[in-house]
Amino acid sequence: MIFKPPTVPQALSLKEIVKPILPRLTQVEDKLESVARESEGILREASAYVLSGGGKRLRAALVLYCASLKEPSEKIYDSAVQAACAVELIHSATLVHDDIIDQAVLRRLKPTANIHFGNDVAVLLGDFLYARAFEMISKVGNASVTELMARTTRLMCEGELDQLKHRFRADLTLEKYLSFIERKTAGLISASAESGAALVGLNLPEQKALSSYGMNLGVAFQIVDDILDIVGLEQKTGKTLHTDMGNGKMTLPWILLRQALEGEEQSNFIERLQSPNTNWKTEVELADRHKIREKCETFADNYLTASTSATQIFPPTVRQTLSALSNFVVRRDY
Amino acid sequence: MIFKPPTVPQALSLKEIVKPILPRLTQVEDKLESVARESEGILREASAYVLSGGGKRLRAALVLYCASLKEPSEKIYDSAVQAACAVELIHSATLVHDDIIDQAVLRRLKPTANIHFGNDVAVLLGDFLYARAFEMISKVGNASVTELMARTTRLMCEGELDQLKHRFRADLTLEKYLSFIERKTAGLISASAESGAALVGLNLPEQKALSSYGMNLGVAFQIVDDILDIVGLEQKTGKTLHTDMGNGKMTLPWILLRQALEGEEQSNFIERLQSPNTNWKTEVELADRHKIREKCETFADNYLTASTSATQIFPPTVRQTLSALSNFVVRRDY
Repeated sequence: MIFKPPTVPQALSLKEIVKPILPRLTQVEDKLESVARESEGILREASAYVLSGGGKRLRAALVLYCASLKEPSEKIYDSAVQAACAVELIHSATLVHDDIIDQAVLRRLKPTANIHFGNDVAVLLGDFLYARAFEMISKVGNASVTELMARTTRLMCEGELDQLKHRFRADLTLEKYLSFIERKTAGLISASAESGAALVGLNLPEQKALSSYGMNLGVAFQIVDDILDIVGLEQKTGKTLHTDMGNGKMTLPWILLRQALEGEEQSNFIERLQSPNTNWKTEVELADRHKIREKCETFADNYLTASTSATQIFPPTVRQTLSALSNFVVRRDY
Repeated sequence: MIFKPPTVPQALSLKEIVKPILPRLTQVEDKLESVARESEGILREASAYVLSGGGKRLRAALVLYCASLKEPSEKIYDSAVQAACAVELIHSATLVHDDIIDQAVLRRLKPTANIHFGNDVAVLLGDFLYARAFEMISKVGNASVTELMARTTRLMCEGELDQLKHRFRADLTLEKYLSFIERKTAGLISASAESGAALVGLNLPEQKALSSYGMNLGVAFQIVDDILDIVGLEQKTGKTLHTDMGNGKMTLPWILLRQALEGEEQSNFIERLQSPNTNWKTEVELADRHKIREKCETFADNYLTASTSATQIFPPTVRQTLSALSNFVVRRDY
């Protein structure tokens, strides 16, 4: 557990938090399985490989929970299930393509799709998942939700490309880092909450509140991911550690460490940041000495607080669930 | 000129054929330019690189022409322009990703995006173009057209992946080959015609007729492409020749040649097909001797006839234009 803010109750499991929507979450899982089952040949195998099990389905849960805030009709709940699937498909597609670009080898304790099926298949697998997502969401027939998902996907590509172009830039600013993760992880989490809200017909201030909740939660989520890339356990995260730095990706811990260091120690560190390295033991120790983890946690905590503040227009029960969800997301070690 | 079927008038230029929609086609071109202009950094450069000039814009022309068949309102024409752009963006995205997979080096007489910007950028550039396409089409607010485009894109991925898995398969059947191109090139051309028809509110039989017209035209189009990969001129096609065979892609000419050969000549040919080669001089000569080009042309001609037959429910002026368009597409050497 990373955070123990005094104001929140003991972290619940995701299943406990979203109990009322659990049957719908199961439908999402079934629907994702059928995406794989309905395809053929290598695509059937490859889709099943990346879609089956292991995901937290946080994004799907957010769509469904936000769509449950106004006693949805059966029809709207079905639309929310479609939207939740679409969001998970988009998420999977970005992981598949990002793993190609990062030359990542491990995800969810399995070889990545690019390693298992090769880059060629992985490119087309990602495209297929995107297309399948848009096929699914367009069937819902809510043009503004479809547009939201397309815009979010476009921003994720832009964010990833921007980040790619800033690799090995030791002088990366905090603002730039935040602009990457706001467009990527946080953007999709925000869109998940907003689309659920839009589908069930919450009013605009409510939609925007949930969008803002998701955006802040998403930033906190990514910061935790970035901390785990440094101090996590591979068996828990299911990913190879220290890949960010190996790929020249400057994340919050390293930006804060760079700011904390002085003189020769700083210039040595900057020099190391500008070239590909695989051994980050010295830097991890430096980060430990300068309490970088704690500083990052404070950062994430601020975003967590902002996410909860954004939900003030909702009744206490809703705020409690959303707050529990945020806490679940941030108090994780995987 | 490849075809000179006696029943059709002298081929017109694309501009002459689609004269009434030329101002709209210019709007499409401007809109595609603004897609690049509105993005930033490397994406701005990379989008402009693949979107600017050189394309035949056949797909856009089809959307616009079919949308003009029922005196469209200004609003519907605007939607058709959006849809036409979306189709061209999807087309560009598939080219960018296919070129990565084919390790192609030349397109429209320029280095491909994967060569010019690297594979990493090319993966994300393709994703961006797809996302931008769905953002654009979702704004039109016609869910069934959005779904048609998503389904078409999904089928293109499936077709490409299926073809990828059948590389170096000398025993590829004609049916399998057709299933690749029906899902890929022909699928998108068909969807272009159908989406224009759907946007302007043509009735279902008319939509289906135009979809079928596009499908048959698309198959003919691809067959001409496959012929040009063998006997074309690089300066005209703008692509490196003989890449299909180098990549183990069995196309119609080679399937027909395999069928035409006998005994040792056939087994030698099959052996050559099963491994990567760069020099196809012997095979091109063999194809020449067995009149493979003429056989392919007959094949394409049959699809051309089918495309025209599909339009019988339309008045003569419409049929004439569609027929002129088909002829333009097939009577090309680039």
